[in-house]
Amino acid sequence: MTKKLLFLLCLCLTVTGVSAAEPLTLTSPNGQLSMTFSLSSNGEPTYQLLYKGKTVIRPSKLGLELKDQHEAVYLAADGGTYKEQVSAHEMTNLQTGFTLASSSRSTFDETWQPVWGETRNIRNHYNELLVCLKQDKLQRGLNIRFRLYDDGLGFRYEFPLSQTLNYFVIKEEHTQFAMSGDNTAWWIPGDYDTQEYNYTESKLSQIREKLPHAFDGNASQTLAGPTCVQTSLQMKTPDGIYLNLHEAALVNYSCMHLNLDDKNLVFESFLTPDARGDKGYLQAPCTSPWRTAIVSDDARDMLSSNLILNLNEPCKLTDTSWIHPTKYVGVWWEMITGMHQWSYTFDLPSVQLDRLDYTLTKPHGLHGANNRNVRKYIDFAADNGFDQVLVEGWNIGWEDWFGKEKDYVFDFATPYPDFDIQALNDYAHKRGVKLLMHHETSSSVRNYERHMEAAYNLMNHYGYDAVKSGYVGNILPRGEHHYGQWMVNHYLYAVKEAARHHIMVNAHEAVRPTGLCRTYPNLIGNEAARGTEYEAGAGNNANHTTILPFTRLQGGPMDYTPGIFEMDLSKLNPKSNCKVNSTIARQLALYVTMYSPLQMAADLPENYARFMDAFQFIKDVACDWDDSRYLEAEPGRYITAARKAKGTGNWFVGCTAGEQGHQSVLKLNFLDKGKQYEATIYADAKNADYRTNPQAYTITKRKVTASSVLKLKAAPGGGYAISIMEKK
Amino acid sequence: MTKKLLFLLCLCLTVTGVSAAEPLTLTSPNGQLSMTFSLSSNGEPTYQLLYKGKTVIRPSKLGLELKDQHEAVYLAADGGTYKEQVSAHEMTNLQTGFTLASSSRSTFDETWQPVWGETRNIRNHYNELLVCLKQDKLQRGLNIRFRLYDDGLGFRYEFPLSQTLNYFVIKEEHTQFAMSGDNTAWWIPGDYDTQEYNYTESKLSQIREKLPHAFDGNASQTLAGPTCVQTSLQMKTPDGIYLNLHEAALVNYSCMHLNLDDKNLVFESFLTPDARGDKGYLQAPCTSPWRTAIVSDDARDMLSSNLILNLNEPCKLTDTSWIHPTKYVGVWWEMITGMHQWSYTFDLPSVQLDRLDYTLTKPHGLHGANNRNVRKYIDFAADNGFDQVLVEGWNIGWEDWFGKEKDYVFDFATPYPDFDIQALNDYAHKRGVKLLMHHETSSSVRNYERHMEAAYNLMNHYGYDAVKSGYVGNILPRGEHHYGQWMVNHYLYAVKEAARHHIMVNAHEAVRPTGLCRTYPNLIGNEAARGTEYEAGAGNNANHTTILPFTRLQGGPMDYTPGIFEMDLSKLNPKSNCKVNSTIARQLALYVTMYSPLQMAADLPENYARFMDAFQFIKDVACDWDDSRYLEAEPGRYITAARKAKGTGNWFVGCTAGEQGHQSVLKLNFLDKGKQYEATIYADAKNADYRTNPQAYTITKRKVTASSVLKLKAAPGGGYAISIMEKK
Repeated sequence: MTKKLLFLLCLCLTVTGVSAAEPLTLTSPNGQLSMTFSLSSNGEPTYQLLYKGKTVIRPSKLGLELKDQHEAVYLAADGGTYKEQVSAHEMTNLQTGFTLASSSRSTFDETWQPVWGETRNIRNHYNELLVCLKQDKLQRGLNIRFRLYDDGLGFRYEFPLSQTLNYFVIKEEHTQFAMSGDNTAWWIPGDYDTQEYNYTESKLSQIREKLPHAFDGNASQTLAGPTCVQTSLQMKTPDGIYLNLHEAALVNYSCMHLNLDDKNLVFESFLTPDARGDKGYLQAPCTSPWRTAIVSDDARDMLSSNLILNLNEPCKLTDTSWIHPTKYVGVWWEMITGMHQWSYTFDLPSVQLDRLDYTLTKPHGLHGANNRNVRKYIDFAADNGFDQVLVEGWNIGWEDWFGKEKDYVFDFATPYPDFDIQALNDYAHKRGVKLLMHHETSSSVRNYERHMEAAYNLMNHYGYDAVKSGYVGNILPRGEHHYGQWMVNHYLYAVKEAARHHIMVNAHEAVRPTGLCRTYPNLIGNEAARGTEYEAGAGNNANHTTILPFTRLQGGPMDYTPGIFEMDLSKLNPKSNCKVNSTIARQLALYVTMYSPLQMAADLPENYARFMDAFQFIKDVACDWDDSRYLEAEPGRYITAARKAKGTGNWFVGCTAGEQGHQSVLKLNFLDKGKQYEATIYADAKNADYRTNPQAYTITKRKVTASSVLKLKAAPGGGYAISIMEKK
Repeated sequence: MTKKLLFLLCLCLTVTGVSAAEPLTLTSPNGQLSMTFSLSSNGEPTYQLLYKGKTVIRPSKLGLELKDQHEAVYLAADGGTYKEQVSAHEMTNLQTGFTLASSSRSTFDETWQPVWGETRNIRNHYNELLVCLKQDKLQRGLNIRFRLYDDGLGFRYEFPLSQTLNYFVIKEEHTQFAMSGDNTAWWIPGDYDTQEYNYTESKLSQIREKLPHAFDGNASQTLAGPTCVQTSLQMKTPDGIYLNLHEAALVNYSCMHLNLDDKNLVFESFLTPDARGDKGYLQAPCTSPWRTAIVSDDARDMLSSNLILNLNEPCKLTDTSWIHPTKYVGVWWEMITGMHQWSYTFDLPSVQLDRLDYTLTKPHGLHGANNRNVRKYIDFAADNGFDQVLVEGWNIGWEDWFGKEKDYVFDFATPYPDFDIQALNDYAHKRGVKLLMHHETSSSVRNYERHMEAAYNLMNHYGYDAVKSGYVGNILPRGEHHYGQWMVNHYLYAVKEAARHHIMVNAHEAVRPTGLCRTYPNLIGNEAARGTEYEAGAGNNANHTTILPFTRLQGGPMDYTPGIFEMDLSKLNPKSNCKVNSTIARQLALYVTMYSPLQMAADLPENYARFMDAFQFIKDVACDWDDSRYLEAEPGRYITAARKAKGTGNWFVGCTAGEQGHQSVLKLNFLDKGKQYEATIYADAKNADYRTNPQAYTITKRKVTASSVLKLKAAPGGGYAISIMEKK
């Protein structure tokens, strides 16, 4: 891995005296954030968080409730003693009755280099407070580790092994986040199976009222509760402080939702249940994921924060040379829009993979993943500098893959008769590109795991090095949810197994990322939010992309699949009446504003052919960066970012705006002083509007320097993109 | 495979006219069994079964109830039509409203050769009636296929694909077996997770009263209901007809229990539910397993019946040369009795496989699977003609494997520090024996499947060709049961994957067998009942082995692990007060009465050393046979069997008796006329009794011929064994 320890200022450990009465305080390195930990009179741990002296999280309780497992939670060896002395309530209570055993403090400062990322270097600088609590009667401990950064707080539970805390089942985690006021929030409904919602902007007090209107249908959907929302949750306090709640390093634990007590404006953790309603099966010693709060009075700091990545473990892969940012096109949008099909025939309403011969069926002629069409994409990719070509619908089984909770739904190995896997890979390699594998699991997870090794071997055999995986529909094993511990375990298993095969993973419909791409950088992308595909359905709100970087992108990159140029989808499929809620200029901007090492140009080659001047930006734009600057940001309104392409002196700027559009005055003082640049500005035309005139753009070139100031206007639902090439 | 079609008498197909009013009858080839199928006035299918003119199954309803899945059960293509016209009740009803579309009859007669078995040839001779029903409004069909043999009836549901029967979920199967009277039954409680019960003998009308007393504890146990019992269920009617209910070819379906309406003495199928309470997820075209009724007025016919095997598909393995009957010893009984341990250390109350180093722990010195001890067993096996040595506890993780519902519980790959896997296999092979692998899964099934390929590869690498697998404890994925469709699918998956590696499987705690060993003869054994291990715990009833061949063994062989010579287990473990409920002579008999191609000599070498004259029978006895004769049989009382060792002229006889002992008068007319034999008779001594004097036996030799008659006495809980060697 590329990580290097640049400097480690100090790592000091202080064991403090035992004193439950005295609150413990911790301040961030720059002193702007401070937190206090204390134990209430009944031994209940609480914390609070202040930013520049203002409360952002009021005193909030910490703790967990375990499931009564009778003798199962006792160690077999000599649990007898405890069985008689301790009540079920005492055994299951990890909320009260604690005393402070010890506490210790330390400071950590390190700069590390991600394998890919928004910046070349990432500083991980925090002050830490480790609080060791104990319940004397049960002779067990519970530790809480707080890390306070300049940009926020992370804390987690740590469960030391003891006779009364060994194997345990979480009934619920009761971590509270007591809000300081009726914050504005950009939220999506709490759901155990999908994150593919438009965001609602509302006061916290309005969540209950607005939640019934905040969702539309999905293939798998299980709403968590009337005031339950998902993380990452972006908020803004009445006095203008931005606060983001999320989690980091979600490993072997259920994904956390936030359940709002809307009388008291207190959020509480609400974990995804398993088939029996339990919230997690743990074995001490172990830890919870980090619970995170990113805080600033400058919205741009929300976007540049690396707190989630920093709370994850360093890279665990010894060789990362095979991992590379990737720009790709694919046989995909034509199926999403209904122009073509993933399937091969209409003859098979019911497919039994081991009993059929596709060559005996009548092709419907709409199969997208056919040899001719794939070659067209390979040529297009090669001619325009793309690395890979995604092909969905290449393998048999798509005739009835959806909504059947079907066990043996795909084999991930057998191509349709019109997809010559050997010849197409050979042709792609000859033209200098690779095919990008697709593994739709239909959420039949056991089936996927059974075929995984062979499927990855097949990829190695043909020269694929990246896979887009999908988890559409209800989970098999039945009763499990997309975001429960069972599946959280699976997603990481798939990534680790892929790493053994030098395969990069881009998992769709998987759990929302929590920075694990630091530890496993072959996790180059995820969906885990409402992507461009919804533009061919119920549509994305015009301001959707002004929110996602505040929320979904906190945990890692999203395969948003931008680059749609034809906004009237009836042009692709006469039966469609969908319009993409964006201007073309904004589509270009997304390659900059939606950071990802994996970027797709999602539209059809023939649509790009009509706008080759605008398409030039997609050809030029990088997908790996030495530096990133967020120039302007307000959730739901606009985001403007500038990024310096890896290993070059070139910058790319993007701006995405919401319903009202946006007026920018950009100082280019991030450019090197004294250097000359040529800027190409792809902007909304004067009369552009995502509703009425989405394809109107202008392209202008001008010379710029570090002292230049650009005045630019984004139309409603619009934006702009700028390439700034260093003159040599 | 060895299957050869010897003669096919005729296969005639008759399409009958459509007539719902007229019952359809079918008789067995010898005419003794006859059944009638009819449709009631509301279109409900029923059948009844007569034996020699006497009713054994009164008119009984057939059908299934589906789960209401709303639109999911409609074909995507044009389900709209049906949605409007058909009610949920109509959609889910596969019980009434049928008319007869057609019926057809055929006769089949074939003799096939099993890879291993009780006889060299098996005749599969039946008359068949295929009834094709339809529900006109839903334009769907339901077929019921009846096969009537001389020894019983098999029938199954067949689900043709239609627009309203494609993917469907079984809410319950309502197959009835209406008893002709208050039969005597030998039953164990219906349970979704264990079959390890002693049998209760009672009238049907007494099941409700006796069931609460019919079970003791198990690691995973989920009682199905107050009058619910398991199959295979052996009964005897008041007029002396034996009737056995079971199922055959349980594939991709939930295991069936029988729920008794004890007012009307009607059994009804009761399938094992999944985590959501559903009973099965099916995709048409498909079939149910066969529901079977073996019938005779001679109890011995119950034991010699091949009906279950015959209803299974022929062997699907093209090469079976690597499959071989196996006699083995093992490092096992010493752990079962508590003399030694599976584990290595007491230092680890909580094992995390990826975080520990056993070489840093203090061994407790009781680890059975150590190099010295395993070598002792290898030598013992080699010196006494055994094929293999089972070693349990060879791999890390046993310190906390049990009762924790632990996901990553074993890796099936890493030996304990004192088990040198390479050296021990080398030594075994040098001595002409193999080690027998052990894969305890602790029911963490995902974990097992993830490691399966590597585990089988490891076996291939070291030269293992058989695995004993185990499923102790609650199933992971949580909420699933040992006998539900999810697990039924898994067990067969494990067998098929093993076959790819030329590995034989002996699965413990798996679903009760249903004859699948015909199709996959590498499934050489199962537990699926209360085995000898319980003698080191709550004990097995003295008559247990007089019932198992009537019940558990109908579906396939059991790894009962007989051969215990030291009945006082305090001799092995001073803390034990267990006594084995058997005489030594009966232990010998079990190698004949409990047919299995896999036979263990379960006791310790040092115990055999004290009784080498009796042990000679275990050394001599075969485990594959050219012929088998059941000489005497009455469930719960006695079974006497004679078998001819494969490829020889030698016979072995065994008798197992219940509480009352048994007096036999054996005619040896199964021997070849004119040949001379030497019989060695291992019998209970006069004063032998399983309670007071279990180790008293006599060994006598005498010359016998086909005209000899032997008078032999089995003590209470006793038996006898005879080897009859052809003189050449």
